[in-house]
Amino acid sequence: MKLSNQPPKGTADWLPAEFKIRQYIFSVWRQVCQRYGYEEYLTPLVESAEIYRAKSGEEVGGKELVTFKDFGGRELSIRPEMTPSVTRLVSQIYNSAAKPIRWFSIANFMRNEKPQRGRNREFWQLNCDIFGSSSLAAEVEILQLALDLMLEFKPPKNSFTLKISSRVLLKELFSKLKISDKQATAVARVLDKWKKLSPGAISESLTKVGLAKEQIKSLSSFMNNQQLPETPGGADLHFIFQALNDLGYKNYIKYDPTVVRGFDYYDGMVFEIFDNHKNNSRALFGGGRYNGLGALFGGQSWPAVGFAPGDETMKLFLESWGLLKKITEDTSRAVYYLPLLEAGLTKAVWRLAKALRQSGQQVELGLEPQKIGKALDYANKKGLSGVIIFGQEEARKKMYKIKNMATGKETRVNL
Amino acid sequence: MKLSNQPPKGTADWLPAEFKIRQYIFSVWRQVCQRYGYEEYLTPLVESAEIYRAKSGEEVGGKELVTFKDFGGRELSIRPEMTPSVTRLVSQIYNSAAKPIRWFSIANFMRNEKPQRGRNREFWQLNCDIFGSSSLAAEVEILQLALDLMLEFKPPKNSFTLKISSRVLLKELFSKLKISDKQATAVARVLDKWKKLSPGAISESLTKVGLAKEQIKSLSSFMNNQQLPETPGGADLHFIFQALNDLGYKNYIKYDPTVVRGFDYYDGMVFEIFDNHKNNSRALFGGGRYNGLGALFGGQSWPAVGFAPGDETMKLFLESWGLLKKITEDTSRAVYYLPLLEAGLTKAVWRLAKALRQSGQQVELGLEPQKIGKALDYANKKGLSGVIIFGQEEARKKMYKIKNMATGKETRVNL
Repeated sequence: MKLSNQPPKGTADWLPAEFKIRQYIFSVWRQVCQRYGYEEYLTPLVESAEIYRAKSGEEVGGKELVTFKDFGGRELSIRPEMTPSVTRLVSQIYNSAAKPIRWFSIANFMRNEKPQRGRNREFWQLNCDIFGSSSLAAEVEILQLALDLMLEFKPPKNSFTLKISSRVLLKELFSKLKISDKQATAVARVLDKWKKLSPGAISESLTKVGLAKEQIKSLSSFMNNQQLPETPGGADLHFIFQALNDLGYKNYIKYDPTVVRGFDYYDGMVFEIFDNHKNNSRALFGGGRYNGLGALFGGQSWPAVGFAPGDETMKLFLESWGLLKKITEDTSRAVYYLPLLEAGLTKAVWRLAKALRQSGQQVELGLEPQKIGKALDYANKKGLSGVIIFGQEEARKKMYKIKNMATGKETRVNL
Repeated sequence: MKLSNQPPKGTADWLPAEFKIRQYIFSVWRQVCQRYGYEEYLTPLVESAEIYRAKSGEEVGGKELVTFKDFGGRELSIRPEMTPSVTRLVSQIYNSAAKPIRWFSIANFMRNEKPQRGRNREFWQLNCDIFGSSSLAAEVEILQLALDLMLEFKPPKNSFTLKISSRVLLKELFSKLKISDKQATAVARVLDKWKKLSPGAISESLTKVGLAKEQIKSLSSFMNNQQLPETPGGADLHFIFQALNDLGYKNYIKYDPTVVRGFDYYDGMVFEIFDNHKNNSRALFGGGRYNGLGALFGGQSWPAVGFAPGDETMKLFLESWGLLKKITEDTSRAVYYLPLLEAGLTKAVWRLAKALRQSGQQVELGLEPQKIGKALDYANKKGLSGVIIFGQEEARKKMYKIKNMATGKETRVNL
């Protein structure tokens, strides 16, 4: 039987060159989060399916959910997002923990959706949250952290924009327009598609939800207005903008009422970071405040604000702006090749490799006797930093030579 | 609806304290592999179910396999092991790559089995392999790497033993005893349980496979003999033992014919590392040579040798020998708490946090105004390294103080 050697549809293989890029992205994420005092956690790959059905929204918690049954007949799902899982974890420790809780994780997820550019079925995400603070300072910190995550990759000026809005503005408007709580979720889901659908399609969808022409007109006017509304929700956003301006992020932030976010659980500030490159004009990631989820697991609820960038969109951003080449250079390790130039030197070569590794060097060993020319070819093909030359002559003189593969220079080292 | 806040059966939550231990184990694995010149890769979380059915052995590729269907009706499995996946990857590049290929990965897996101490349904493994070398030097390197992985945790002397055997010895014996190729796989599976089953149960199982009393007696005598047989297979193992002795590992290695390994695909040297602690007497991990798998994906096959330690058994080993406490101490980060001591200083405190982070410090910010006593309590409860004191007086003097939480000492720093 001959099987396909390609990965399943919607998934990707990371050969070492690709792995280095992803690992670099993850290590930047980790560093920036740690700089803000966030602690890393991880949850199981699978959860009870019901926790997604309860709160993830119609697609992620519905038809896109990958489910199966375990031996006990429990219906489990591969996690399609982190928020329900991390909420479950926080519910175990919330009462006893020092608050606020600042947590992050880097994990893989799966959604059974149609694969498209930037959205694979399996993807990796950083999830970064503050639990236990209702202060607007939490919003400011989360947005600053998201901005620093982007800036840490040293992108050009104006390469991205953080667009901010708030579900509170919608709530205030719904209340003014007498849109019922029952209609609110459906209306928010339509508004989330504001830039993807035509005005006609939006209007049609809102009519289906039961809105009247006047209500639709008012919603439309809100969505097209670039000024912050003069409401309590608007005043909160104003505070956030002022703080970020003062911290030096003015050129990267913008109020945008069309930012709504797809998950039903957002109930405060929401944001998305957009790539401004003409070839990759898209939302890179987003997040916001979601205070209601804790109650899922019984007892009280708690304030929460967070966000979740994905590896694939981050990579597309870096690619758009020509930042990948530098990453590949920066992450190359100094690996030396130590060939076995004479079969009689086997034991001596193995001992030398051991000694070099113990001193912290990265040494790849030749497993079979090899002429120096072949050894140099091998090191060259693999892009290694140098070749350690240790033949009969060097052994007699109790030394070895290091040939630098970039410059061709040889350095003598005594054993 | 109130949902359970516990993880699904057979899985585990890693809160930050637990995450640090796992991350420490992973970072040791990564460092040691890189020291030997191995490159990291990753495969998708899921694979076509048929690749496991074809080669993983009766349990892992059978009743323990977690499967589901994607939108296209393809039957997929969450990976229960890495070997079929990495073989698939290697088949994409084998012909064009410089050989040998040295690769490793650190990934999570799932098997729908009965959870027990050291074996959860979801688990993490390091997979470490050399592809493309038939030289015994590859066996020596892989065993040395496995030994160094253990020794890197600085365990006490005699805390573990690497037990080595070879499927070639079994093959030689089967040929001598006229055990057919058809019977061989079933016989090897029985022999793999040698230490778990009683002699009577072993005998019964072998009789079921169709072996005669004389054949069973010869097998039994082989399994109980601590001397290397004088066969070509025995000579190969002798070479390996000599090389490892010469490299200084003599006290950690031993020939043991009862090491067989559960996977059908092993066809040369096999090994297992055993914890010698009386409270955790168990195989920690193992591996061996498996040359036949490449053909699964069409075309030629290639030589391969590798191994795969798991996170949970490694943690149990560290726990048995009292090594976890030191790890927790070694991995604690220097995180400082910067409280907001006066509401009027909000902007100044935020700017100070930004500056400190830009200089590489890890700074957790107080989000709401707080008295110094509360701030110290918070830092103490969280086990942070220090508190940065910046109130009205410090602001006036353009300085801040760092209070070391361990010693209580205060250091003044000018802004």
